[in-house]
Amino acid sequence: MRLKVEFSYLGENYFGYQVQDGVRTVQGDIEKVLSDFFDTDISFVASGRTDTGVSAIRQVGHFDIKDDVLLAKIKNDSAKEFESLVIRINYLLDKDIRFLHVSKASEDYHARFNAKKKTYFYNLYSSKTEIPYFSQFALWVKYNLDINKIRDAIKAFVGTHDFTAFCASGSEVQDKVRTIYEAELIENEMGYITLKFVGNGFLYNMIRIMVGTMIEVGRGKLTKDDITKIIENKDRTLAGKTVSAIGLVLGSVEN
Amino acid sequence: MRLKVEFSYLGENYFGYQVQDGVRTVQGDIEKVLSDFFDTDISFVASGRTDTGVSAIRQVGHFDIKDDVLLAKIKNDSAKEFESLVIRINYLLDKDIRFLHVSKASEDYHARFNAKKKTYFYNLYSSKTEIPYFSQFALWVKYNLDINKIRDAIKAFVGTHDFTAFCASGSEVQDKVRTIYEAELIENEMGYITLKFVGNGFLYNMIRIMVGTMIEVGRGKLTKDDITKIIENKDRTLAGKTVSAIGLVLGSVEN
Repeated sequence: MRLKVEFSYLGENYFGYQVQDGVRTVQGDIEKVLSDFFDTDISFVASGRTDTGVSAIRQVGHFDIKDDVLLAKIKNDSAKEFESLVIRINYLLDKDIRFLHVSKASEDYHARFNAKKKTYFYNLYSSKTEIPYFSQFALWVKYNLDINKIRDAIKAFVGTHDFTAFCASGSEVQDKVRTIYEAELIENEMGYITLKFVGNGFLYNMIRIMVGTMIEVGRGKLTKDDITKIIENKDRTLAGKTVSAIGLVLGSVEN
Repeated sequence: MRLKVEFSYLGENYFGYQVQDGVRTVQGDIEKVLSDFFDTDISFVASGRTDTGVSAIRQVGHFDIKDDVLLAKIKNDSAKEFESLVIRINYLLDKDIRFLHVSKASEDYHARFNAKKKTYFYNLYSSKTEIPYFSQFALWVKYNLDINKIRDAIKAFVGTHDFTAFCASGSEVQDKVRTIYEAELIENEMGYITLKFVGNGFLYNMIRIMVGTMIEVGRGKLTKDDITKIIENKDRTLAGKTVSAIGLVLGSVEN
């Protein structure tokens, strides 16, 4: 049986999602708990890998399990039984990772290939001096930023484009065409801003480069027209720097 | 000379603002750094004491210093010299505390008595299962909450009232009349909510009790009219529980 899992994590103490030898990863922690719980090797597949330090509010994954192994742990595949399974697995997981929901999926369901829409948030604040409270979850930008310029220019990302200029060099992905459905600046009353991106998928470091480029816009170094040209020219060196992962959060995955 | 200080801190590793023997406090850290830096005992006064774990985005304080002691460290009392002073003091402070601004104040200025308006934020989220990313800075509420009921009922706090029902028992303050200028619910795109309170002052645990009471409203256990009656009756036992400090942040102080 294939099971779909919605899960959530605070990434700050993990070396990213994907399993790597010798370091703590979200996938590694989950596979260990599931394998121990079911007493059989379990491979866990997520909709996408998040980088070191990046959190997820609602990420999606799946894993396969033999019916008899599952039914040794729960009575049947009803929602109620899956709810009790979630509680028991959460009891075993570190408090930084939580399963939110488990359900039966069709055999051809795949958390990565079925992911139709992902929402990412990036928090940042502009201040001469660091604000320690914000720095827990937001990037500190020392420059003054013109918020309205960013609010306008970020719209240049919306649509279907070849995002080669916004992909880390060395990425092995061939097709760099992605669709951004939504890109917007949200002001938070506390004094920081959030850049929200909704797309059908994102290239390696794509959001962190888009945010670095928006900071250049806020500083007055680039305009909205420049963003359009940078996309067209497919030249990574014209876009802004890759900002740190500190402000990045995967909000949700639709599939 | 009396100096006014705007400062900021992440409260999670401190036993609150106020100096206490044997534990780490914000005031204790600041007084130690200032006393070492100026090589004389310095007492630091803030606009208000925040509880254990509570952060401040922009808090205000003052301290007195002899002119010759100050002028041994900076050339004159120009803004530029105070800016360099801020940088040097921040270098000595733990990264969880930052001075944002220092300026000369009149001799009768007092950070606490002159505080005219304070803004507090309280973050919380409703979810069956904990969301580890939110739990860094927001209270986890397991119940379903009707956001619109809270949005409406929170307005009952606005105005000048005797807030005895919303003050921790044992408080020594006699005059429990306070004015709330603004009380509102703000929805965050990421999925949590923030309750914002602006007032001329707040009693001990007042915000945490108001938030606990708003949770009862969101659950459908209390109505907006009940809030008005609870205020009138001045009975602490009718209001909600005092919620944890996890979601509380001092936003700013006007004086």
